[in-house]
Amino acid sequence: MPVISDKASAMPASAIRKLVPLSDAAESSGVKVYHLNVGAPDIKSPDCAFRAVLDKCTGMHHLSYTNSAGLMELRKGLVEKYYRKIGIDIEVSELLVEVAGSEAFAGAMQIAANPGDEIIVVEPFYTNYQTFAFLNGITLKAVHTEIRDGFKVPDISAFEALVTPKTKAVLLSNPCNPSGKLFTREEMLAIGDFCIRHDLFLISDEVYREFCYTDEPHFSAMSIPGCEQHVILADSVSKRYNLCGARIGCIISHNKDVMAAALKLAQSRLCPPVLGQYAAIGALDTPQSYFDEVREEYIRRRDCAIEELNAIPGVFAPTPMGAFYAIAELPVDDAEAFTRWMLTEFRIDGQTVMVTPASSFYKSAGVKNQVRIAYVLEVPLLRKAFRILREALAAYPGRTV
Amino acid sequence: MPVISDKASAMPASAIRKLVPLSDAAESSGVKVYHLNVGAPDIKSPDCAFRAVLDKCTGMHHLSYTNSAGLMELRKGLVEKYYRKIGIDIEVSELLVEVAGSEAFAGAMQIAANPGDEIIVVEPFYTNYQTFAFLNGITLKAVHTEIRDGFKVPDISAFEALVTPKTKAVLLSNPCNPSGKLFTREEMLAIGDFCIRHDLFLISDEVYREFCYTDEPHFSAMSIPGCEQHVILADSVSKRYNLCGARIGCIISHNKDVMAAALKLAQSRLCPPVLGQYAAIGALDTPQSYFDEVREEYIRRRDCAIEELNAIPGVFAPTPMGAFYAIAELPVDDAEAFTRWMLTEFRIDGQTVMVTPASSFYKSAGVKNQVRIAYVLEVPLLRKAFRILREALAAYPGRTV
Repeated sequence: MPVISDKASAMPASAIRKLVPLSDAAESSGVKVYHLNVGAPDIKSPDCAFRAVLDKCTGMHHLSYTNSAGLMELRKGLVEKYYRKIGIDIEVSELLVEVAGSEAFAGAMQIAANPGDEIIVVEPFYTNYQTFAFLNGITLKAVHTEIRDGFKVPDISAFEALVTPKTKAVLLSNPCNPSGKLFTREEMLAIGDFCIRHDLFLISDEVYREFCYTDEPHFSAMSIPGCEQHVILADSVSKRYNLCGARIGCIISHNKDVMAAALKLAQSRLCPPVLGQYAAIGALDTPQSYFDEVREEYIRRRDCAIEELNAIPGVFAPTPMGAFYAIAELPVDDAEAFTRWMLTEFRIDGQTVMVTPASSFYKSAGVKNQVRIAYVLEVPLLRKAFRILREALAAYPGRTV
Repeated sequence: MPVISDKASAMPASAIRKLVPLSDAAESSGVKVYHLNVGAPDIKSPDCAFRAVLDKCTGMHHLSYTNSAGLMELRKGLVEKYYRKIGIDIEVSELLVEVAGSEAFAGAMQIAANPGDEIIVVEPFYTNYQTFAFLNGITLKAVHTEIRDGFKVPDISAFEALVTPKTKAVLLSNPCNPSGKLFTREEMLAIGDFCIRHDLFLISDEVYREFCYTDEPHFSAMSIPGCEQHVILADSVSKRYNLCGARIGCIISHNKDVMAAALKLAQSRLCPPVLGQYAAIGALDTPQSYFDEVREEYIRRRDCAIEELNAIPGVFAPTPMGAFYAIAELPVDDAEAFTRWMLTEFRIDGQTVMVTPASSFYKSAGVKNQVRIAYVLEVPLLRKAFRILREALAAYPGRTV
């Protein structure tokens, strides 16, 4: 009998999705599960996205491939209607449509690093960075940020300490999934300067750009002076327009070699999904009022989440300034065991809560008592969920405080 | 300035798509180009596919992620409405929805082989097999089939001769892109027996299954007795329903380890495109008459293509029994140079033809005078295209006969 490859067996299961069978089992036995585990918001997608799909598909008789780089209407639209508006000035040739943000950063990692090379990440980081690094034989080296410091980026000497001849890039998400950390202009300038000094690519995953809760505008890696040839931007319509299922994103760079390589990778999978491209074209007409309303709603939810979390004895959660996640330190021995226990044993009135254990967001060992909370439910539901979490923590046998 | 990885620079550009800039240039200067180069048919997609998209999107306000394995409605529908009907008996857990056939075979290759391992292919083969092998550090070893033998599969000793301790799988497409070769039952049984004896996976790309021009039904690798744990099937809706842009396919195996690994890979990219999944759900209701009509149309086109090609002095093209491609040997020194010359210099009444040079479909060096013809135009247009090809061959300076 044939045996699957070591690579396929050793590949880590998604930390975010591996407990899904437990919640499926709970739900099919009639338990109501509050999902604070996945960044799949309940917010409405803009109507113009669906309208575009309906318009294009009415009377349609073909669904052919598009250009591997995406439909010109979408590429031009992104450049002119979206990026220009937010101050990112690019040519159409500097943007290529991808199968969601996932393909964009996975491609960027391969463009920057060979098997055996190293990429510096800021931890906690999006867990699938580790998956794609593993699949491509790339080693991640992590600069640690501390929950008790509000995930402040440390002095650049922490980056310098990780540099070897194999270091090829820095990879970060800003705002950060999972910490909600928003990188300041100063932090980004320091990282940009570091990349310039060491000839490194800066892969910046900015899929949560429209979810910033400070008064300053988001500072994109594309705006770092002198870093034009270093920055590879990974972006997506999934979060921006609540179109997670469309699977459309893009990769952007002023570096011609990067874009030529991205096109070769894109050609190997023929083209991005066309119906999703239609939705993305429609979404470009989303009015600013949509973003403003969504932002206000998330600020309400974040404030609720942070207030409720810190009111639970033994819980610590700093206030995130972006995205729709918060990391919370819980008074438990092992956050994964606690999460499993909530899904399999703990119920209040037939209800429980699902969170994501945060250890897989870290390269450093020993971060075992943190969870990621996605505040993707309306405030009244969030309150209910946190009440259940509070009771669960009080009842959990592995409680440490 | 940072430098892109050796992997990204050395990655081959798509043989099928790399000449597209030349045809774009010809077209934008007003030249009419007959495209015999890409398997993008002009055949209508079934109406039920678009109807499903319209029905699902009307009044829709969310486009969330689906399960990483795809919507249950689609998975069940594929198992019950399609595979059962054609005699492939599988459970829902033995099928996972992929981002088109590309993701299915690329995943299967990684599940079967580590970097440094080897996979046996039957050449000529689909050129992107080489791309994904390259990206994953896998070496392809090719069993040669000869155009003058109608691409008959040689004795199994040709496979035996390639086996090393690093051999992990056999990979083939049936019907074959690019040769149109339809593997016989006997050929498949022999290959299956070979895989069983050497504990190899058999990765069978059957995306052209509905395009067979013999009286016998298609013989799937899934039907090889005793090979249940070896076969990994890659399939797609792109060709079957002329829904190339939907980007929906699936991976199928009775082997539980394979499916567990496929799920881990699927989770890393979150989910397949949802709107495409809707189109695929709708396409499951395609009536048999649709396939019958499409098949008759392709037989007309194939007969036209083979007749016209072999009528050109010095051209040889065996009759393909499946897919919608033919390989033709041309009386030229270098088929790529000839293709470039047709796109850049040769015009008849402002018209020219684009074909795909076939050398990249071979591992063996020296196959320089073959092209792949996709007979994806209506017969009258095909006749015009072949008339232009005939004139081009008569006028080409690098003509060998």
